[in-house]
Amino acid sequence: NDLSGFDVKKDESTVSITVVGASGDLAKKKIFPALFALYYEDCLPKHFTIYGYSRSKMTDDELRTMVSKTLTCRIDKRENCGEKMEEFLQRCFYQSGQYDSRDHFAELDKNLRRHEAGKIANRLFYLSIPPNIFIDAVRCASSSASSANGWTRVIVEKPFGRDSESSAALTKGLKQYLKEDQIFRIDHYLGKELVENLSVLRFSNLIFEPLWSRQYIRNVQLIFSEDFGTEGRGGYFDHYGIIRDIMQNHLLQILALFAMETPVSLDAEDIRNEKVKVLRSMRPLQLDDVVVGQYQSHTRGGVTYPGYTEDKTVPKDSVTPTFAAAALFIDNARWDGVPFLMKAGKALHNRRAEIRVQFRHVPGNLYGRNLHGTKLDQSTNELVIRVQPDEAIYLKINNKVPGLGMRLDRSTLNLHYAARYAKEIPDAYERLLLDAVEGERRLFIRSDELDAAWSLFTPLLKELEQKKVNPENYPYGSRGPVGAHYLAAKYNVQWGDVSLEE
Amino acid sequence: NDLSGFDVKKDESTVSITVVGASGDLAKKKIFPALFALYYEDCLPKHFTIYGYSRSKMTDDELRTMVSKTLTCRIDKRENCGEKMEEFLQRCFYQSGQYDSRDHFAELDKNLRRHEAGKIANRLFYLSIPPNIFIDAVRCASSSASSANGWTRVIVEKPFGRDSESSAALTKGLKQYLKEDQIFRIDHYLGKELVENLSVLRFSNLIFEPLWSRQYIRNVQLIFSEDFGTEGRGGYFDHYGIIRDIMQNHLLQILALFAMETPVSLDAEDIRNEKVKVLRSMRPLQLDDVVVGQYQSHTRGGVTYPGYTEDKTVPKDSVTPTFAAAALFIDNARWDGVPFLMKAGKALHNRRAEIRVQFRHVPGNLYGRNLHGTKLDQSTNELVIRVQPDEAIYLKINNKVPGLGMRLDRSTLNLHYAARYAKEIPDAYERLLLDAVEGERRLFIRSDELDAAWSLFTPLLKELEQKKVNPENYPYGSRGPVGAHYLAAKYNVQWGDVSLEE
Amino acid sequence: NDLSGFDVKKDESTVSITVVGASGDLAKKKIFPALFALYYEDCLPKHFTIYGYSRSKMTDDELRTMVSKTLTCRIDKRENCGEKMEEFLQRCFYQSGQYDSRDHFAELDKNLRRHEAGKIANRLFYLSIPPNIFIDAVRCASSSASSANGWTRVIVEKPFGRDSESSAALTKGLKQYLKEDQIFRIDHYLGKELVENLSVLRFSNLIFEPLWSRQYIRNVQLIFSEDFGTEGRGGYFDHYGIIRDIMQNHLLQILALFAMETPVSLDAEDIRNEKVKVLRSMRPLQLDDVVVGQYQSHTRGGVTYPGYTEDKTVPKDSVTPTFAAAALFIDNARWDGVPFLMKAGKALHNRRAEIRVQFRHVPGNLYGRNLHGTKLDQSTNELVIRVQPDEAIYLKINNKVPGLGMRLDRSTLNLHYAARYAKEIPDAYERLLLDAVEGERRLFIRSDELDAAWSLFTPLLKELEQKKVNPENYPYGSRGPVGAHYLAAKYNVQWGDVSLEE
Amino acid sequence: NDLSGFDVKKDESTVSITVVGASGDLAKKKIFPALFALYYEDCLPKHFTIYGYSRSKMTDDELRTMVSKTLTCRIDKRENCGEKMEEFLQRCFYQSGQYDSRDHFAELDKNLRRHEAGKIANRLFYLSIPPNIFIDAVRCASSSASSANGWTRVIVEKPFGRDSESSAALTKGLKQYLKEDQIFRIDHYLGKELVENLSVLRFSNLIFEPLWSRQYIRNVQLIFSEDFGTEGRGGYFDHYGIIRDIMQNHLLQILALFAMETPVSLDAEDIRNEKVKVLRSMRPLQLDDVVVGQYQSHTRGGVTYPGYTEDKTVPKDSVTPTFAAAALFIDNARWDGVPFLMKAGKALHNRRAEIRVQFRHVPGNLYGRNLHGTKLDQSTNELVIRVQPDEAIYLKINNKVPGLGMRLDRSTLNLHYAARYAKEIPDAYERLLLDAVEGERRLFIRSDELDAAWSLFTPLLKELEQKKVNPENYPYGSRGPVGAHYLAAKYNVQWGDVSLEE
Repeated sequence: NDLSGFDVKKDESTVSITVVGASGDLAKKKIFPALFALYYEDCLPKHFTIYGYSRSKMTDDELRTMVSKTLTCRIDKRENCGEKMEEFLQRCFYQSGQYDSRDHFAELDKNLRRHEAGKIANRLFYLSIPPNIFIDAVRCASSSASSANGWTRVIVEKPFGRDSESSAALTKGLKQYLKEDQIFRIDHYLGKELVENLSVLRFSNLIFEPLWSRQYIRNVQLIFSEDFGTEGRGGYFDHYGIIRDIMQNHLLQILALFAMETPVSLDAEDIRNEKVKVLRSMRPLQLDDVVVGQYQSHTRGGVTYPGYTEDKTVPKDSVTPTFAAAALFIDNARWDGVPFLMKAGKALHNRRAEIRVQFRHVPGNLYGRNLHGTKLDQSTNELVIRVQPDEAIYLKINNKVPGLGMRLDRSTLNLHYAARYAKEIPDAYERLLLDAVEGERRLFIRSDELDAAWSLFTPLLKELEQKKVNPENYPYGSRGPVGAHYLAAKYNVQWGDVSLEE
Repeated sequence: NDLSGFDVKKDESTVSITVVGASGDLAKKKIFPALFALYYEDCLPKHFTIYGYSRSKMTDDELRTMVSKTLTCRIDKRENCGEKMEEFLQRCFYQSGQYDSRDHFAELDKNLRRHEAGKIANRLFYLSIPPNIFIDAVRCASSSASSANGWTRVIVEKPFGRDSESSAALTKGLKQYLKEDQIFRIDHYLGKELVENLSVLRFSNLIFEPLWSRQYIRNVQLIFSEDFGTEGRGGYFDHYGIIRDIMQNHLLQILALFAMETPVSLDAEDIRNEKVKVLRSMRPLQLDDVVVGQYQSHTRGGVTYPGYTEDKTVPKDSVTPTFAAAALFIDNARWDGVPFLMKAGKALHNRRAEIRVQFRHVPGNLYGRNLHGTKLDQSTNELVIRVQPDEAIYLKINNKVPGLGMRLDRSTLNLHYAARYAKEIPDAYERLLLDAVEGERRLFIRSDELDAAWSLFTPLLKELEQKKVNPENYPYGSRGPVGAHYLAAKYNVQWGDVSLEE
Repeated sequence: NDLSGFDVKKDESTVSITVVGASGDLAKKKIFPALFALYYEDCLPKHFTIYGYSRSKMTDDELRTMVSKTLTCRIDKRENCGEKMEEFLQRCFYQSGQYDSRDHFAELDKNLRRHEAGKIANRLFYLSIPPNIFIDAVRCASSSASSANGWTRVIVEKPFGRDSESSAALTKGLKQYLKEDQIFRIDHYLGKELVENLSVLRFSNLIFEPLWSRQYIRNVQLIFSEDFGTEGRGGYFDHYGIIRDIMQNHLLQILALFAMETPVSLDAEDIRNEKVKVLRSMRPLQLDDVVVGQYQSHTRGGVTYPGYTEDKTVPKDSVTPTFAAAALFIDNARWDGVPFLMKAGKALHNRRAEIRVQFRHVPGNLYGRNLHGTKLDQSTNELVIRVQPDEAIYLKINNKVPGLGMRLDRSTLNLHYAARYAKEIPDAYERLLLDAVEGERRLFIRSDELDAAWSLFTPLLKELEQKKVNPENYPYGSRGPVGAHYLAAKYNVQWGDVSLEE
Repeated sequence: NDLSGFDVKKDESTVSITVVGASGDLAKKKIFPALFALYYEDCLPKHFTIYGYSRSKMTDDELRTMVSKTLTCRIDKRENCGEKMEEFLQRCFYQSGQYDSRDHFAELDKNLRRHEAGKIANRLFYLSIPPNIFIDAVRCASSSASSANGWTRVIVEKPFGRDSESSAALTKGLKQYLKEDQIFRIDHYLGKELVENLSVLRFSNLIFEPLWSRQYIRNVQLIFSEDFGTEGRGGYFDHYGIIRDIMQNHLLQILALFAMETPVSLDAEDIRNEKVKVLRSMRPLQLDDVVVGQYQSHTRGGVTYPGYTEDKTVPKDSVTPTFAAAALFIDNARWDGVPFLMKAGKALHNRRAEIRVQFRHVPGNLYGRNLHGTKLDQSTNELVIRVQPDEAIYLKINNKVPGLGMRLDRSTLNLHYAARYAKEIPDAYERLLLDAVEGERRLFIRSDELDAAWSLFTPLLKELEQKKVNPENYPYGSRGPVGAHYLAAKYNVQWGDVSLEE
């Protein structure tokens, strides 16, 4: 049994966090700042060491200089910030090496051991490197730099393969060197504040659970949009496309959390068991239930925004979707027949990630019969969980407009986080790094979850590629291709994010 | 069939509104201002005349001067206000007369006829006079001042008797001269904005209806408090007491609206049918389920507030309750076993009228088992409908406190009227007067409703009086007698308005 | 308040039952035998007298002879039967007279008074006469033969008019002479054992109520079939047709009882209030939702059964439907969207009256996915209430066929009355006569119910007649026209009575 | 993936079934007859061989003679029975050997191989031997007689240890030689026809699922009784007692099947996942919630039945319970607060195993208020699933007693297997043996299930033993100790099997 949660409180243990790929963008922008935030919040164990590892030659001081540029203090916690930063940087070190060299990892091991100074040594490796060298790095780290007396864990970032086969191969590769409970597959959307809150909402409030089923919910929408394109860095993206990049992982993970049955406890394995069950109850996606799009150049206010294929890192004839919409179905007792619609895209008119739950019409609606001014048929209840930006939960309800006469309108019962909670919301990476240190696996993806997720999307992805399905064009900065509306209409759904009222 | 709603739009009909008891307080403070507001809002028919009638000698101009002092314009509608007031006052006339004189009413009739000028004459009498002269006035108005060719309606204010017998006698008296559909028994709480909204909330929102039953609701609380005492005007009150003054009518009416089954339509008779059904499903109140209190003198911040029996208009040995709490039960399929708690009092610490719905605990609560910091057992969902002051609807839910770690707290999904709706909320009297003019009976109390209401309270009231039950004392400005808490505790309830969080 | 229930137990009161139209078929076959059964069961008050009244000349003894031919004793109660019959016949008397003669009724009055012998005299008139003389008889009975000191009640048999207008005229006519609570409109289907049991099943069993709504019920079928035609007596029938004869009253009444909300009590007015509510929530029938048929001659086993228009009492070109099927909808919260299908016909393959409740499919059916041998999609649960013949309630459920392997089939949880209850089930007329004597109005139709019922059917009936819609032919002894299946299919329904399994 | 289900249909594979402990009682009475029944029903693969293995010296023919005495043909399938028996016996062979001798198992292996004749060899060992030699036999069978090219499976019979520790040791021992998917822990109650049907009832009938929760179910009772005592064979029993013998396995397994959530599929692992979840949601038993009893000598009809401690194989001062009743609770959303009562005993008044589901009272019961003759408070609905003898499902409902007047009683909607299904119901062993041959693990107990089951009972069992809790005496042939009623009453329950009506 994993006792790491307790170990970190003991004096005699230590944690070493090695960021493999330390000179990369993600490391600089997200990982080091998150580690600092955890340090600042006093969440890291007393004895810890941070190592950057990458191929570049660098001294410890050069690393510290590089890292220091991206550290910030929270708006609400500026006290002693400079001092804290200095302390943090003194715990950061650098080791250069090849990702496939056992010798270089052995050197790292020697250095780590020096810092560990005979304490119980727990080691966390964060692989912030391209997928094609995952296995090499894991092999070297595992054989040459595993902890001798504590735990060794490895955080892996997506992509976890391109389809069922490549994902299975990757998992098989990892499992040659690591056991399931050492692998921490990160999906940073699962670390978002409101995604975490999903389970709290459902399971600690009596009023939501009875509503959480086909009986009351008409459809569920999972929406992700970015207001920028690939911006000259489309090489990686073009190989994957929006479906693999956003839908198959982030949106599908959120869907599983949303739709799962009540777990037997809040333990990681219990929650992941339920998530797998939902995924296994779903039908693989059908081409008919998917719309793909690609953004085109668009000029607005005198500025011309380039189309996707005008990105120099993208092939001119690329049919990689930068937008996709899909309808999914869960064939179990709770969700039978309820469409789960997903929509994800780049270069759209806004930046947003949200879950929209549209409730059914009121049966035998008294007001529908009597009040002709209000389109009550469309005024159904809606619960919106806005994951980013500007976190909020709101519930749309119908009520009487104050005044003489009887006129209804739709108001919102609102919980706006910024207004309610003074403090800054931590970045998803902070939560996930802390969980990995503490051995909390709830928000990481287990191998069987990953398999189940790929088996839903792989047939579709293959068909799209084999048939070279042409994406529907849409202008940069628009609301995406019109096909997404036809798809929704096919299941009697209107996208909630395009109504006028918001 | 009543076609008045249409008639008032026709040129050839006219409405005469006679305020019987025009020199009284209610007339000045509420009725004339409400009539003016309706005029300002353009809600009165084109041809209308207002007559004040009382025993005092007064000219039309004296009436206008008296009335003009209490007219105000809404904060949001100040345009042409003076001009409008002037126009309105020109439509006001005065007729002095005894309340039991057919001749005087015949004079009124003559005057009204002059104004009606041959049009279809609809007449509304507002009886703002003591109950002992209701019948006399109705007899005279009915026999000498009824409309010959239009409708004649009479608005009656509470008290509608002191118990089943006196109420039945009053009804019988009225029915000698009027048919049921001519009698408009006013309960001005039914005209409150949020009471009106109750049905809208329930019946036009899918998400509330499934929750609206014993299965999800633990208890319902109906709370009324005033922060002042009788203040030297306790004569009338002492004859009735808080139970008759507030509970048996205002709170019971709200309870009936809250708890009724879905009516077959929004028509007045259908709604009133359902309200009667609820009242008939209730058990008459038991002495054991009632707590009565009386406020005592209290000195605070150097000011001494007088006790109830120190009011000169009140007998020194009065045991009339100025506070009461009661537990009621509805023995039907929807509400079996759910306590409905009422609380009403004068001279309490604040002024408030609200409905609080406390939901049940989450069964098998996942978070209850795991998180010891939060008292989740107490953190159940609550829906609060604040009727006055400062109208609002809010729903208390549990959610995760943003930040690392898992800590829950209770937030509110909030709909605050003042923030959401810019315009001023009309006074209950405006709505009710307009409804009476338009023949809309939904918010008026039918004879069988009144009977059913009295039959719930009469045995208790008699027992209280026969046993001369001594009220529990409480200090002026306090939260009322502690007995109210014991009563609630007997049914596993905590009053929602005394928790610290609000 | 009606105290008749108690009065009949007092020595000093008496009941006189006058069968107006005593020489008719119904009187002989149903009314006198029912009165005897009540007598045999000791259900009639101690002092009672029965009078036959009709135009024929007859002596008391001739009446007794006529009546005695149709009296039978129950199979399970043969004791003293002859003796009891004799006693009963001695209480039967005869008065001949015209139905529109006050004088003749005055003579009846004189005779009744002699039997009443100064006791409190309660009088019940059973109008077993053609509708065109209802009003005359009521006028005469009411003015010349009303009880002076007890109650006077009149039982009326259908038809209650041919449409909204004629029904309203009839009601208006009756109300000239009778108050609502004196009129007992009989629908003998409401006296059937299993129709009575409907409310018991729903309201005294926890397990049915949660299932009793759109959420679980897919459709409800009300089926009536006779295996004989008009058989030379089609004159009356041709004027009305099957829709008026069976659907608008019997089937609609059962539907209302089935679908009504829980009444506030079992009192007659409370139940009838709920029935009216259901009727008012229904949409008037559309021609599109109705199929009409007429039987044709058919030869089977050497016997030729005549077609409807071959009946000599029927016009050769009659388009009167002898079969009809219809889809009805109740637009309230409980039943929104659930088709209620009715089917009624003469000269069909069997004789039957039943209610079939088909439940929805199991959402996310585990067995549906795995077992390909069983057509689970069709194997949904069904509750059947067989009203006649051979009363039974059965519930079709799926269970595992015993044996190795997993094979499902549909069994029935069965309550067969004949097997469970040794005693004979009383005829509907007994129950209804007894109720009328006791003043129990639950099973009689109130004027507003009747209005509501006609307003659903009148537009359709007029359209059928104006358009002279041709009925679809079907052979005598068949299962009716195929159009009934198309109508059902339009709403995704299969008639339950034609499946192979029964 | 396990393809054995298909393999057995292929010509080139063969199955050898070795009954280890062939001369024992269970083998003779249950295992060989079950194997024959499977053969007769044509359920065994084409190529199969049966070996008896035990310490006794015996020839093949002697085994055949021994076996032939207990073979019977089903009542409904007597055709060719003798012939079939002969064929079957020719496939039976015998090998004598020690249970802990590798050499003897190696001899068995040689013989099996001869019969397998080069085909794919699948081997099933049925360990019908005392628990203390389980591990030895498994070690020897596994190392010396495993199949080289097919599967090898081992069926183990209870007892699976005496508590958490010994069970864990046993599992650990088995897993040294076998993988989880080779171990088939048999609980023959899971092979009972109506236990199998439990899931079918719940998941293929829409009408049961909505009722299957705390909202509608008041309590669940699991009842097992035998009408005989240890009868001179109490040695084994005295070491275990009724709690270990019946409750912790048979009744708890049925409870888990009854109460589990809907599995994601009918696959064995999915069902077992859900069963483990239920067990993990339960609280360990409390001494306060358990009653134990022991039967005493009793004379009836001239016959004296001996008390438990009068059995010569039982210590005189034994406090081993021969009866126990217990209340268990499942702390999840579905079952929170619903008592699950178990009762098991020997030497009681009848032989029976059944599940009784008592539903809640009807809220706001209309009939409760009006009909004083019927104790409706006790007349709640009940679903009874009788597992043995005389399999049946029945549902108790309230309905109207036919006849005039309104009297209710409780009838049953009944499905009696013997009446509905002509064919004989197979013995549990047949089903389980067939499943083991086909690799269907649904009805076998997984290690984690077993752990969870023991962790519920182990603390109680230890406390009973440490405190030497004296069992309550009850007479042989009685209904058991009265303490069982007090325990039930503590949770407002009445045992359903002792009511008068059945």
